Amino acid sequence: MTRWKLTLEYDGGPFVGWQRQDNGPSIQAAVERAVTAFCGETVTIFGAGRTDAGVHAAGQVAHADIVKEATAETVRDALNFHLKPDPVAVLAAEAAPANFHARFSATMRHYRYRILNRRAPPALDRGQVWHVGTPLDAAAMHDAARMLVGKHDFTSFRAVACQADSPVKTLDALSVTAAGEEIHLLVRARSFLHHQVRNIAGTLKLVGEGRWSASDVAAALAARDRSRAGPTAPPEGLCLMRVDY
Amino acid sequence: MTRWKLTLEYDGGPFVGWQRQDNGPSIQAAVERAVTAFCGETVTIFGAGRTDAGVHAAGQVAHADIVKEATAETVRDALNFHLKPDPVAVLAAEAAPANFHARFSATMRHYRYRILNRRAPPALDRGQVWHVGTPLDAAAMHDAARMLVGKHDFTSFRAVACQADSPVKTLDALSVTAAGEEIHLLVRARSFLHHQVRNIAGTLKLVGEGRWSASDVAAALAARDRSRAGPTAPPEGLCLMRVDY
Repeated sequence: MTRWKLTLEYDGGPFVGWQRQDNGPSIQAAVERAVTAFCGETVTIFGAGRTDAGVHAAGQVAHADIVKEATAETVRDALNFHLKPDPVAVLAAEAAPANFHARFSATMRHYRYRILNRRAPPALDRGQVWHVGTPLDAAAMHDAARMLVGKHDFTSFRAVACQADSPVKTLDALSVTAAGEEIHLLVRARSFLHHQVRNIAGTLKLVGEGRWSASDVAAALAARDRSRAGPTAPPEGLCLMRVDY
Repeated sequence: MTRWKLTLEYDGGPFVGWQRQDNGPSIQAAVERAVTAFCGETVTIFGAGRTDAGVHAAGQVAHADIVKEATAETVRDALNFHLKPDPVAVLAAEAAPANFHARFSATMRHYRYRILNRRAPPALDRGQVWHVGTPLDAAAMHDAARMLVGKHDFTSFRAVACQADSPVKTLDALSVTAAGEEIHLLVRARSFLHHQVRNIAGTLKLVGEGRWSASDVAAALAARDRSRAGPTAPPEGLCLMRVDY
């Protein structure tokens, strides 16, 4: 048996999220079906990030144990063949140590949140950006973002339904940069709370609009009260870019 | 009456092409419907490039004559409102001189052709790239592309159905660059023959694979025979980026 580390790209739009659920198609189930179609084995795969419905990945990592022997290239190509027509692609398959765990071995997760900041709605990038039609001040957003970097109690930025044991997390980096008509939030941490990045994006948008200051963000963080931070940004702007081990 | 210059972005995937046709939805008809919904007037709009089915635009230009008086912002926002849910967006509306013609006044058209050159199929950029799973040599493609720059008889790169008066066109620039996992062809000319960019892309792919040399491309051009050049690349990689006047 080989433990396979799979690097995945997917468009989260048609899915109920990473995790297998009764109410619709999940990325997890799509990959599990592809594994079964390839080797006849019933497997459970584990992902580094349980992305929400509509959230994308350019570098999600999952692992699966497969008895059937095959080269890494064959596993990658066979899974891609069986994943059609779902918008999920296996970028790489690598044999991993038996104790490798996509979720628990991860040391860093990198997310990007894309805002399309122009008057006209997206046509080419529809479903992959948050469209904000009013001008945002990316520099002010970047300044305010610094209030959130480091180790904090992120209760104010945590979904009420979040099941993490502790609201204390360490944001290793959070930057806001203008990229043409887009504004990108780049954030990395060992792990995140449920909706944490989307709640940060929704709060920093208030700063970009000039409605909130950096100290308002600091006060929202200190309040440890979800109702004191900004709204949850929509899922389609979010993408899990990379996972480090 | 005002002649409006409209800059358009669209995902060509769901359309039969720019031009109004009996066999399905066109971008032209979508914009014309939006104009009628906005002002009650029946108009014919003219586009700078009659993009094929599946070909995209990030900066197509069209013009329309509208009697109803409105600001540029109102025209843009109203058309975007009425274009929903079609993946077509009006990036800008500008009042133009009465003799401005989106097609005939254009002095330069800029196209980009995107190749996703990796083993795994596209998930996030599906429908917007040509997936080529075997490694391509972008530098060799760039060298060969130079054979096509300048004024030539492009009969070998012209769709048999092309209705242009002359097969002689001037390519002002054609470059091939690697961009991460992608290879981009950037090409500009005052005007193009039908399928010219896609036939060039399909031919340069043969060079990238090592099957053709730069002199094979030169020989194909000199032959003035469509059957001597490479196959037509698929539409989804092509995007009309900009039109100059």
